[in-house]
Amino acid sequence: MMATSRPAEDTATETDSFRPRVDNRQEQIIGIACRLFARRGYEGTSLRDIAEEAKITKAALYYHFPNKEALYHRIVLDSLQALIYHVRAAVDLAPTPLEKVRQFMLVSAEFMDADRDSWMAGSNAFWMGAESEPRTLAVALRNEYEAMLRTCISDAINSGEFRKSNVAMTGRFLLSALNQISRWHNPKGAMTIREVIEQYLDMALHGLQAPAKA
Amino acid sequence: MMATSRPAEDTATETDSFRPRVDNRQEQIIGIACRLFARRGYEGTSLRDIAEEAKITKAALYYHFPNKEALYHRIVLDSLQALIYHVRAAVDLAPTPLEKVRQFMLVSAEFMDADRDSWMAGSNAFWMGAESEPRTLAVALRNEYEAMLRTCISDAINSGEFRKSNVAMTGRFLLSALNQISRWHNPKGAMTIREVIEQYLDMALHGLQAPAKA
Repeated sequence: MMATSRPAEDTATETDSFRPRVDNRQEQIIGIACRLFARRGYEGTSLRDIAEEAKITKAALYYHFPNKEALYHRIVLDSLQALIYHVRAAVDLAPTPLEKVRQFMLVSAEFMDADRDSWMAGSNAFWMGAESEPRTLAVALRNEYEAMLRTCISDAINSGEFRKSNVAMTGRFLLSALNQISRWHNPKGAMTIREVIEQYLDMALHGLQAPAKA
Repeated sequence: MMATSRPAEDTATETDSFRPRVDNRQEQIIGIACRLFARRGYEGTSLRDIAEEAKITKAALYYHFPNKEALYHRIVLDSLQALIYHVRAAVDLAPTPLEKVRQFMLVSAEFMDADRDSWMAGSNAFWMGAESEPRTLAVALRNEYEAMLRTCISDAINSGEFRKSNVAMTGRFLLSALNQISRWHNPKGAMTIREVIEQYLDMALHGLQAPAKA
C-alpha cells in the first residue's frame, strides 16, 4: 500500500513514525489488522486480537505499532493520501472538465479495487470510529478528495458540458456509486472495474430515461 | 419499528419469538443494541455490553432476548421485512414502470430516514456479519428487495420509458445512491429526504451531461 505513495528513493528514518519502514512482519500485521477492522470495525478490534491472530506477543506488536492509532494511521490515512495522490495526478492530466470527472471515477475505482481489504477496513473504521485525532485527519482528507470532485463538476457546469445542478449533490451522487462498488464487485468476476465505471458513467452522464420521441 | 409492520389488532403470543410483545424495556434494549451495533458492528458487540449499557443483569436481558441472534432478528430482519412491505405497497399502486422506480426510491429513503439508528445498525451488521443463519435470511430479504427494483427497471425498459441498459447494473446504480444517504443526510438539515430523492432521480433519469447543441 505504501509503496505507491512514496518514491523509491525515499529513505524514511526510524523517527518518521507515520511512515515506518516496510518489512514482512509489518506487512503481515497490517494485513491482519485490515481483515479484523473490516470484519469487526475499529472499535471492536483490540491490539490483543491482532497480536493473537499474528501469533506474536503484545510486546512484539508494540515494537512495530505503539498503539491502535498508529495502525489506523498506517491503514486509513496512508490509503486516503495515496488515493488522493493518484486521482489528482490523473485529474490534472485530463484535458476537459468532463474528462476530469471520468478520470476521478476511473482512478478511484481502480485504486479501491486493487486494495479492497484495506479500503473496506478504512471505510468501516472511518464510518464507525469514535471522534479522535486520526478520525479528524481522515475527515479532512476525505473532504479534500470530495472537494476535488466538486471542482471538476463545477468546472464542467461552467464549461457547458454539464447541465446546471447542485454541485454538492452531484458529487454525492457520483461518490455513492463509487463507494459501494467494493460491496458487490468481484474483481475475478465477468466485469472489470473499468467496465463497471464506464457503465456507471454512461448512466450518470446520459440518464436512464429514453429520449422523448419526436 | 415493529408497530408499522403489523396491524394494531395483532395479538402475538409469547411463543412467536420473532415478533415479541413490545414493552418499554424491550424498546430500550433494542435502542441500545442498535446504537452499539451501529458503532461497533454486530461481531464487536456482546450481550454483556448491551446489558451493561442498559444497566440490567444478563439474566434480565436473556428474559427478553435469549441470544444475540434474537436481537439481530428483531433489528435487522424485522426492519428489512417492514421496508419491503411498505415499498411493495407503494410500487403496486404506481401507474407506470417509471413511476414505480420513483416510488421505490422515495418510500425506501423515507423508511431509512425515519429509523436511522436501526437502519445503520442493520446495514453494518449485514455487511460485517459472519456467515450465520440470520445473515442468510437477511441476504434473502435483501435479494427480494433488489429484485423488486430490477423488475421495475426491466418493465420501464420494455415499456420504452428507459433506454436499454444492464438491469442489474442500473439497480446497483440507484441503490448505491439510496444506501449512502443515511451516511451524510441530516434529517434536521435544509433538505428533506424527499428533495434529496427528487434531485437524485432528476440526475439519474435525465443525466448530468448538457444536451448537445443543435
